[in-house]
Amino acid sequence: MTDPHKSAVGAATQPAPMVFFLSDSTGITAETLGNTLLTQFPTQGLDRRTIPFITTEEQAHEVVAVIDRVAASGRRPLVFSTAVSPEVRAVLAQSAGHFFDLFGAHIGQLEQALGSSANGLPGQAHGVGDAARYQSRMAAVEYAIEHDDGQSLRALERAELILIAPSRCGKTPTTMYLALQHGILAANFPLVEEDFGSMSLPEPLLPFASKCFGLSSLPVRLSQIRQERRPGSKYASLSQCTYELRNAEDMYRVNNVPHVNSAFMSVEEISATVLQRMHLHH
Amino acid sequence: MTDPHKSAVGAATQPAPMVFFLSDSTGITAETLGNTLLTQFPTQGLDRRTIPFITTEEQAHEVVAVIDRVAASGRRPLVFSTAVSPEVRAVLAQSAGHFFDLFGAHIGQLEQALGSSANGLPGQAHGVGDAARYQSRMAAVEYAIEHDDGQSLRALERAELILIAPSRCGKTPTTMYLALQHGILAANFPLVEEDFGSMSLPEPLLPFASKCFGLSSLPVRLSQIRQERRPGSKYASLSQCTYELRNAEDMYRVNNVPHVNSAFMSVEEISATVLQRMHLHH
Repeated sequence: MTDPHKSAVGAATQPAPMVFFLSDSTGITAETLGNTLLTQFPTQGLDRRTIPFITTEEQAHEVVAVIDRVAASGRRPLVFSTAVSPEVRAVLAQSAGHFFDLFGAHIGQLEQALGSSANGLPGQAHGVGDAARYQSRMAAVEYAIEHDDGQSLRALERAELILIAPSRCGKTPTTMYLALQHGILAANFPLVEEDFGSMSLPEPLLPFASKCFGLSSLPVRLSQIRQERRPGSKYASLSQCTYELRNAEDMYRVNNVPHVNSAFMSVEEISATVLQRMHLHH
Repeated sequence: MTDPHKSAVGAATQPAPMVFFLSDSTGITAETLGNTLLTQFPTQGLDRRTIPFITTEEQAHEVVAVIDRVAASGRRPLVFSTAVSPEVRAVLAQSAGHFFDLFGAHIGQLEQALGSSANGLPGQAHGVGDAARYQSRMAAVEYAIEHDDGQSLRALERAELILIAPSRCGKTPTTMYLALQHGILAANFPLVEEDFGSMSLPEPLLPFASKCFGLSSLPVRLSQIRQERRPGSKYASLSQCTYELRNAEDMYRVNNVPHVNSAFMSVEEISATVLQRMHLHH
């Protein structure tokens, strides 16, 4: 506290405000939009806390007490809320934080557009919703696990999508994301050196060419990622990565397989691109 | 068109408006908050369309043309946008749809709260962000696949979380969700009849009791789900489900394993609950 060095730093740079994401449901929506808004500012290292399932006024008062303690001891926190209940929102709005009412700001306009009133029930965007959707996601995740990395070629005809790529281009997480978030039956299939003898698709994929989507990357980036798995190996070498990527891209082109360079894309970006290009939105 | 029946129905119930989710990034944020808002209204069977990666004014004009065509041929569409660029937003706002500017509505308040200006770059909430996060999610997904359903007891000490439950209570999709969305190293371990001889945890879990979280369900619901997998089996029978769930819940209680009944919870709700109870937010 009396370290002059620290005081100087404290005076020069204002401490980053703490960020709260509040919800009467999972908090995912509050986190998602809150984080989107925050990416517009230099806010690295922010201390973020999600408090889900705030469903009663009493719980809301407890949360307000937490926020107020943080506000009293430093900078005023940012509070992003998607609480639906007017009563809960009213309590949360009283905190000493900057209150961003992500739900309330839009619900009035939507009521007008639809010509009816909001039902006031807690957010169900991430609720179990219809059981059918839950089952289809569960089935898709299991399918994805079973068909990861070309493990099983059984039931490939059931696949809605087959992601193909050399090792470490992002096939597995993208497949899981599409299964979990969109219930899509996605298999993935690794392209290895032996596949590049001819420019045709690997034999097991031939009947399903129209379901294939290819990923590629940049040699330097791929080599980096492979180095973490097998340092110093031929597998991770720049020359091997260059060879595999060039051949994979040629294969995609020759066979009219839509593809994308995923080197600097997130799993979400790759997934959104695949959905758009393959017209796969459920 | 001339079917009098149809006309009567058409007159009685206004057609549901089409819904657009627009973004200069993946569209996930627009879908998430838009859907949360829509859950407040009776809007089943809405035709929803996501248009991601709208980054130029030209692309925005094309999207506006699509929306305007829909508006001209029926009911005015709902348009949820998280576009960040002021230029793109200005174009999108001109469409004939009801325009919900999910980003613009809050960015001014956030600029005030932070005392600085938004950088105007497209939303990066679902961008690759830091490569370290990408790697950790990728590693977590692979760990989850390798340790799904008690397949591998290797490296269980690396797990941050071990989900335990009888078959079909939601372990696998929850594990994948926690890995993908939160980069959490999660294993899952099935509880089977043989585990209920004593009330202690299965032997491989004993050193890791503090990492365990239990799922249970309702016998009727679990039986339904198992029937889909193995119709008419003992495994799916109500008596077997009742037996396994009762014993699992007793085991959780005796060993102080935190647990939740996931019968009517979504993967997101189970995940949010696990994170909260196990203090696992990264």
